[in-house]
Amino acid sequence: MKNIAVLGSTGSIGKNTLDVVRQHPDIFNIQMLVTNRNTDLLAQQISEFKPEYALIYDKQAFTEFSKRYQFNHLKLWQGPEGIQRVFEEKKPDHLVNAFVGFAGLEPTIHAIKYGIPVALANKESLVVAGSLVMQLAAIYNVDIFPIDSEHSAIWQCLAGEQNNKINQLIITASGGPFRTVKKEILETVTPEQALQHPNWKMGPKITIDSATLMNKGLEIIEAYWLYKVPVEKLTVLIHPQSIIHSMVEFTDRSIKAQLGIPDMRLPIQYALSYPNRYTLDIPAMDFTKITTLTFEQPDYQKFPCLGLAFAALEKADSYPAVLNAANEVAVNAFLNRRIKFTQINKVVEQLLDSHQKIQAIEFADFLEIDKTTRMKAEKVIESFDLR
Amino acid sequence: MKNIAVLGSTGSIGKNTLDVVRQHPDIFNIQMLVTNRNTDLLAQQISEFKPEYALIYDKQAFTEFSKRYQFNHLKLWQGPEGIQRVFEEKKPDHLVNAFVGFAGLEPTIHAIKYGIPVALANKESLVVAGSLVMQLAAIYNVDIFPIDSEHSAIWQCLAGEQNNKINQLIITASGGPFRTVKKEILETVTPEQALQHPNWKMGPKITIDSATLMNKGLEIIEAYWLYKVPVEKLTVLIHPQSIIHSMVEFTDRSIKAQLGIPDMRLPIQYALSYPNRYTLDIPAMDFTKITTLTFEQPDYQKFPCLGLAFAALEKADSYPAVLNAANEVAVNAFLNRRIKFTQINKVVEQLLDSHQKIQAIEFADFLEIDKTTRMKAEKVIESFDLR
Repeated sequence: MKNIAVLGSTGSIGKNTLDVVRQHPDIFNIQMLVTNRNTDLLAQQISEFKPEYALIYDKQAFTEFSKRYQFNHLKLWQGPEGIQRVFEEKKPDHLVNAFVGFAGLEPTIHAIKYGIPVALANKESLVVAGSLVMQLAAIYNVDIFPIDSEHSAIWQCLAGEQNNKINQLIITASGGPFRTVKKEILETVTPEQALQHPNWKMGPKITIDSATLMNKGLEIIEAYWLYKVPVEKLTVLIHPQSIIHSMVEFTDRSIKAQLGIPDMRLPIQYALSYPNRYTLDIPAMDFTKITTLTFEQPDYQKFPCLGLAFAALEKADSYPAVLNAANEVAVNAFLNRRIKFTQINKVVEQLLDSHQKIQAIEFADFLEIDKTTRMKAEKVIESFDLR
Repeated sequence: MKNIAVLGSTGSIGKNTLDVVRQHPDIFNIQMLVTNRNTDLLAQQISEFKPEYALIYDKQAFTEFSKRYQFNHLKLWQGPEGIQRVFEEKKPDHLVNAFVGFAGLEPTIHAIKYGIPVALANKESLVVAGSLVMQLAAIYNVDIFPIDSEHSAIWQCLAGEQNNKINQLIITASGGPFRTVKKEILETVTPEQALQHPNWKMGPKITIDSATLMNKGLEIIEAYWLYKVPVEKLTVLIHPQSIIHSMVEFTDRSIKAQLGIPDMRLPIQYALSYPNRYTLDIPAMDFTKITTLTFEQPDYQKFPCLGLAFAALEKADSYPAVLNAANEVAVNAFLNRRIKFTQINKVVEQLLDSHQKIQAIEFADFLEIDKTTRMKAEKVIESFDLR
């Protein structure tokens, strides 16, 4: 029985994780559920999965929850500190880190320090502080298992290829909802339009990132840290059907790909079952229905965020942390109708341009960069503000 | 340094094997070259690769060669017996068996008995006598490495998946030169038309088999023995571009695929380099040029050979050997304009229908079935004869 702590259990990845556990009650046990503030869904999840621990980040939500719900044998905590206490008291076999944004970094670091393998959906952990996270993972000899479908695909393709050199990692991208619209149209797209992803149902932050292609840029940085390949071997390929989740080309020109119907339960389960595979009740790939797969080159003119991410990775050190923080603030501002869709990349670009490289080493360094960037980004947004 | 014996060095696979060796003179050494009768090319190959042994099957060709060519330090033999002598005298590290048809079975068996790993392009070894070959391979603990691009693809996808169950082997097929023509047209196609394969340059026998889809049927039987999956988990998928060389679906619905520009040097090198991969100078996959991959279901009505192969595999025992012998004779008759393209499957079907199952155990049993079937097939062809 594998004991699992789920951070972000009420979000999209969290719910999918619980469905994987639901399909394998003999293999997986939920030990801890963590949410920010979605208390009603948390209560449902506690009723069903009976975890030993639950944690609510938001103070007000915690107070409301405590008034409305009562669970026997449940240890309930408020605030981030509880996570570390669970890691210490009852070391889970796996942490599923499905927090969104910078907030996911600290729990990743804690898990590593307590020797807990991390199934990582929080790509920001690696985007912001890949050097720190991978260094700690090496020191504490802890595995980081990707949950992103692209990185899971690459990981699956690399099974059994330990000693073989990678020629190219080909990270596929659907192209998002604006792949076929004209560049000029992007000026006026609304949050509602940007939130319509053609293939994947995800949270709002990652869906906007998919529309700007920043998500693919973040994934490039994530792949850089996970698979230790130089920037020039990281390639983005637009594949509108999202059937091929990514590919690896080896030195003999052999390409391996992992494919299937888009469903996050597969990479989640693989991260928890590796190196084994268990049966999984998800829609099967049906080649009588899916008869065409297409590929296009990404349009760096229309989607400048992709180029910005490559540039931040090349500049290294503190630049990816700046990219991430500026983007988080800008996406939020777009969702709140404070800036235009086409201003998201402008905010990020301004922050990257004005940034002076810092050698970030410890968590406190990354936290400082994150805070400073957010403040500066806020100012840039104020100067753009549409309201 | 790996010493390699190449059986069928003057054929398509043989020439590609020598090019792989040419690219890696520091890793591979040609120890023995074997041809049936293409003596001029053999002489060239001897000059370049300086093998210790050469062998010519055909007696007349051997005599002519001996008159025309003289090589110092070359041991030259005539007839099949020499192969065993080389295996005994100087055990090669690898046998590349690229013989065409039933003739390839005996050298495969000899290699296994001498403990020599077999890189197998001769699919008939497994189609005809899969039970015997795999049993011997287990007893002598010898590896059989596939060279067919489809089986190599599956093998590559299975790397690192040792304990994971296969849901489906999806063996792709180009569909051959007659994929889009009407069934009625097949009545009148000529050998010249059938020899125009859209994607692969291969010898005449396998090219005709690709046009009838018998080649895919033989590959299904080969996959059955190599990967030990039941018949119902073997699927044929038409993929006209021949970019995805085959796929494996696991129990969690994850599909792994191997892809690349069609080039036999890749599966040949992989069979010789496994588990390692070496660089290989072949055309790279270019996604700016290859932008669409399509899939279709095979047409069992138009290409009855595919169904006949599945039926022979299901009936098991001596049936696949009958299928293979009848097909070899029929293809030859079609190439000699004695029967129509659409009579190839009729010859095979008649032979399968009239066959009484025999429990074949030893090589002699398979040899007997092969001989008897060829005689009977010849009679059926006489009754069809167009001349």
